[in-house]
Amino acid sequence: MRVIEHIQEMQIWSEAEQQPGKRIVLVPTMGFLHEGHLSLVRDGRKRGDRLVVSIFVNPTQFAPQEDFAAYPRDLKRDLELLEREGVDVLFHPSADDMYPQGFQTYLEVEKLGLLLCGGFRSGHFRGVATVVAKLFNIVRPHVAIFGEKDYQQLQIIRRLVRDLDFAVEVLGHPTVREKDGLALSSRNSYLDPGERKAASSLYRSLKQAEGLVRQGERDGSRIVQAVRAEIDKATATRVEYIRLCDPSSLEDIGNIEGEALLALAVWVDKARLIDNVLLRA
Amino acid sequence: MRVIEHIQEMQIWSEAEQQPGKRIVLVPTMGFLHEGHLSLVRDGRKRGDRLVVSIFVNPTQFAPQEDFAAYPRDLKRDLELLEREGVDVLFHPSADDMYPQGFQTYLEVEKLGLLLCGGFRSGHFRGVATVVAKLFNIVRPHVAIFGEKDYQQLQIIRRLVRDLDFAVEVLGHPTVREKDGLALSSRNSYLDPGERKAASSLYRSLKQAEGLVRQGERDGSRIVQAVRAEIDKATATRVEYIRLCDPSSLEDIGNIEGEALLALAVWVDKARLIDNVLLRA
Repeated sequence: MRVIEHIQEMQIWSEAEQQPGKRIVLVPTMGFLHEGHLSLVRDGRKRGDRLVVSIFVNPTQFAPQEDFAAYPRDLKRDLELLEREGVDVLFHPSADDMYPQGFQTYLEVEKLGLLLCGGFRSGHFRGVATVVAKLFNIVRPHVAIFGEKDYQQLQIIRRLVRDLDFAVEVLGHPTVREKDGLALSSRNSYLDPGERKAASSLYRSLKQAEGLVRQGERDGSRIVQAVRAEIDKATATRVEYIRLCDPSSLEDIGNIEGEALLALAVWVDKARLIDNVLLRA
Repeated sequence: MRVIEHIQEMQIWSEAEQQPGKRIVLVPTMGFLHEGHLSLVRDGRKRGDRLVVSIFVNPTQFAPQEDFAAYPRDLKRDLELLEREGVDVLFHPSADDMYPQGFQTYLEVEKLGLLLCGGFRSGHFRGVATVVAKLFNIVRPHVAIFGEKDYQQLQIIRRLVRDLDFAVEVLGHPTVREKDGLALSSRNSYLDPGERKAASSLYRSLKQAEGLVRQGERDGSRIVQAVRAEIDKATATRVEYIRLCDPSSLEDIGNIEGEALLALAVWVDKARLIDNVLLRA
């Protein structure tokens, strides 16, 4: 596996690999890799001829009071894991290279970026959209894979690809979970054993919502109420939002007809965890 | 010359033309072509192997009260002119194709986009940056050429290319002028003979500034004052701004040391005209 740290070197590689019939796959990550990432990487291996994984803890998607500095990092371990997966290139740029002096160009996905997490994490999706556009221009992938745990992020990336005509196929990959259902996340490393146990209430609450819909419940507020009750039962949890929304526009819906996304963000002590489920009436 | 109206068709062409050592040149325009455009096109012909000219009157770079509907158009004549210049592809998309339903992704070059014209044309450079990013992704040029009359636009495009890592070389092309010095612009067609005469005051004022600097004048406010006096002498002119600024950051400067950009926007009746000159102390 080749490790590339500089944008220009990555671009030279990508330019040389632009050949008819050959597909470059990109799996963008912030590192501290877990089985969720590796599952994307394995999927990526099958989707094309060259596989690039990026590791970059992107400062512009963290608000000033957020956990940029504390975000877990372990490049040595990440390297070993990716080596085993047959990755061709690990792209691992520095923040100074990605955001040189005078940097001032940002992408904004205006409606989708303000809903759900966007209402609480000011500037977050602006940072995500901007870094993803940069990675697309640097790596020039034909396919890019993102996890469905970050459902809103996935929808925003799909939208910006369509709106700005990036020639990239965006694929979502199902959330990978622990045995008790907790969605894998690098931020789970913030949890102590008691918090870890409390965190399992997120998945339990989503399953409960699924059960209610299966039993015929269509009233969004009753579903959200049941989800909140389940999470509130756990200690050290604080709900940031629980929303039932349209899976494409992410706008709130009152009653389920067809498909609906149930998305939530919950603080478990200092860890902000997100999860979601698609509900079908 | 092939005329392509659909984004997808253009992307298929571009994808097929991505070959080692082969360079695609793009000259983006809003049509109603004049010698200024044609001079860019002729330069473009020499800069690569394939030459694409785009004609698209971009609605997102016009504010609601501006002249989008009135902007002059003459596709038949443009086609004839480009045919003669040996252009390979004219890309002429529709607004519906460029801005499909639900479109919501915009680029913002934050500092540069708020100065000079950005202070008067709200959202203008957001629209410019967004459409240029789209054109880059659709045409995938190796080189793109822009006129220096729109000096701020050129700087903004250089900045967004650097910031978002577009693999595009951006070239500026010197302003082409009428005999009396008026910078060629499609908007000159708005002028009646009297206004046309008044419009020549813009260039005269810039030459006067050059003369003052040559004589040793370094005081920005005195230079700006002289420029304003020259323009005010003409009938039907209304100065929007006259600024002496740093050629890179576009921020105001008080005194000329080294290079300075003198940029102005002046209304001549209903025509908003811009021009600029680089002054060297």
